[in-house]
Amino acid sequence: MAKYGTSASPSPSRVLLRQLFEKESSTYTYLLADLAHPDKPAVLVDPVDRTVDRDISLVKELGLKLIYAVNTHVHADHVTGTGLIKKKMPEVKSVISKVSNAKADHVVEHGDKIYFGDLFLEVRATPGHTQGCVTYVTGNGPDQPYPRMAFTGDALLIHGCGRTDFQAGNSRQLYQSVHSQIFTLPKETLIYPAHDYKGFTVSTVGEEMLYNPRLTKDEEAFKSIMENLKLDYPKMMDVAVPANMVCGLQDLPTKA
Amino acid sequence: MAKYGTSASPSPSRVLLRQLFEKESSTYTYLLADLAHPDKPAVLVDPVDRTVDRDISLVKELGLKLIYAVNTHVHADHVTGTGLIKKKMPEVKSVISKVSNAKADHVVEHGDKIYFGDLFLEVRATPGHTQGCVTYVTGNGPDQPYPRMAFTGDALLIHGCGRTDFQAGNSRQLYQSVHSQIFTLPKETLIYPAHDYKGFTVSTVGEEMLYNPRLTKDEEAFKSIMENLKLDYPKMMDVAVPANMVCGLQDLPTKA
Repeated sequence: MAKYGTSASPSPSRVLLRQLFEKESSTYTYLLADLAHPDKPAVLVDPVDRTVDRDISLVKELGLKLIYAVNTHVHADHVTGTGLIKKKMPEVKSVISKVSNAKADHVVEHGDKIYFGDLFLEVRATPGHTQGCVTYVTGNGPDQPYPRMAFTGDALLIHGCGRTDFQAGNSRQLYQSVHSQIFTLPKETLIYPAHDYKGFTVSTVGEEMLYNPRLTKDEEAFKSIMENLKLDYPKMMDVAVPANMVCGLQDLPTKA
Repeated sequence: MAKYGTSASPSPSRVLLRQLFEKESSTYTYLLADLAHPDKPAVLVDPVDRTVDRDISLVKELGLKLIYAVNTHVHADHVTGTGLIKKKMPEVKSVISKVSNAKADHVVEHGDKIYFGDLFLEVRATPGHTQGCVTYVTGNGPDQPYPRMAFTGDALLIHGCGRTDFQAGNSRQLYQSVHSQIFTLPKETLIYPAHDYKGFTVSTVGEEMLYNPRLTKDEEAFKSIMENLKLDYPKMMDVAVPANMVCGLQDLPTKA
């Protein structure tokens, strides 16, 4: 793999971030690693089944040690790659929120920290799109990445948000989640959502507080917007949700 | 717009980078700005006609002053957004290489610098995909972004490269361009290509020198690979190339 930090030039940030896109479901997967730790321990956030081989190949090329495959929630629009990754790399542990009721090696709750090397993701409960939605936020402190990064899943999208009309979604709860758990982060915090449909890759807390067309409204107006979206039933939902309740392990061939 | 750098916390990097994706042609557009300059002057690299409104809206939300719309080359797969941007923002100047023979407000040559505020893009001639292809590289120096960023157009893609079978493409020339102008940059230099078809968003010089399946070969093997790709004729080519020779201004409605 490429050697970094061996020259006299200044070192890049110790955190590695790679944003990866799955075109069919417009899903972003994120690879994070602590490059300053000798093992280069890494986490994948929201991997997709169709792109597992690409993601594993990248992990290997970068010389990382993948330790966790983490989901922000039980997705309804694609099957998580977590189960397939665990088949191919049995040392990887799956992580999801306890409230989601989904099966995983580790279940996490609001306030928990997920360490990879000396870096960590803080778990913030952000229900409303689903009951079990969480936002993973990089740590606060001198050795942690600056600006902070928030992996918001479907709770907050760039100039949008996830729908609230199934999987025990609740628009008032989503509004409160975003305002209390995401909009209270420093304005320069980078927003990395689970999806984007317009080709944006990143936003900031400051921009969403000013320009998100839904979440800049008051709670009543937000609720009204969310009740009148008239969205189609997600075509993948009846396949994806049962699979994702077992971290995508359902119906996997026994020989990977 | 969001205010940065007004708190006691450390300032983010002075360079703003936003990567933007156009799904139909899998094109990346890049927005760069000098946030430390009072005007926040900005450059768009490889805008696409279909996503001009999105890009202009982002420029406005971020409070930037767009000064240049820059193309890496005369694209064959999509119409540049440059002409539309100039219609909507007449103060913006278009930029392309002199060798491309395309029409623009400014034509640039190898070694030129394109300043936006106190930051700049260095022009490196990287012909081979087309005769007029250039790579724009952020500056080298204490006030310039670190790691450096190379906007490679179609000369170097992530684990790939642009085809060399039309628009005076030449595989030997492309090989030499990448090896002499891109692979000589520091290994941590970030590679931001004009396209990606697998969902990658960024790579580094170090990774491409180790893992690019074409450009890690010797020149003869590279030539043989490029001669045997058996690619279809680009479906947009007969529309895109004539339009892009005039920076996408061809057949624009007179009232924008």
